[in-house]
Amino acid sequence: MSNLTDSKSSLFANTPKPPYYAVIFTSLRTQGDDGYGEMAVKMVELAAQQSGFLGVESAREEVGITVSYWSDLESIKQWKANTEHLKAQRTGRERWYDSYQVRIAKVERDYGF
Amino acid sequence: MSNLTDSKSSLFANTPKPPYYAVIFTSLRTQGDDGYGEMAVKMVELAAQQSGFLGVESAREEVGITVSYWSDLESIKQWKANTEHLKAQRTGRERWYDSYQVRIAKVERDYGF
Repeated sequence: MSNLTDSKSSLFANTPKPPYYAVIFTSLRTQGDDGYGEMAVKMVELAAQQSGFLGVESAREEVGITVSYWSDLESIKQWKANTEHLKAQRTGRERWYDSYQVRIAKVERDYGF
Repeated sequence: MSNLTDSKSSLFANTPKPPYYAVIFTSLRTQGDDGYGEMAVKMVELAAQQSGFLGVESAREEVGITVSYWSDLESIKQWKANTEHLKAQRTGRERWYDSYQVRIAKVERDYGF
């Protein structure tokens, strides 16, 4: 939202007026770090450099939820096919995640305060 | 997803085949509980009783993310207008949240493992 302060906008994605897209990534981690933390930071940095990236919000307690925002489906498709990201996805399935779900959704409306 | 085990499905929403809707609620809390924890539990219980409710996923670190899933926009509208929920929304703006954002999105595709 355009009225967010700087401190908020580091936690809240500063998305434009809808429509745009959200990728909702819900995950259960395996035990131990095993390189996960470093990869997670790297993937957010890399995602932020991609065409169509709008922002990301993330939190983990029992379950982890990361929502990344994108301008269009083509940008999401290209990010999914990014070489470094493909490696991370594979290692994720092999080592870091017990399970995960990805949901691709078109944001039709937003509001806040 | 239909292949989730019982333990996973308590953390992951057991949503049907798309399309369905997601309400992505991102928030920054004020300091102190001030009745928030009790209300949060009550609102999830109440949401789960509403027509069209499909599930909910939630995590909080610096930022809180709660994603609730619904069969259609009309169910989301009715939940927003629920009397008990309206009270919670008002108290939320007055006391519990420093700020929040709500995004309503149509889930077009999902996958997982």
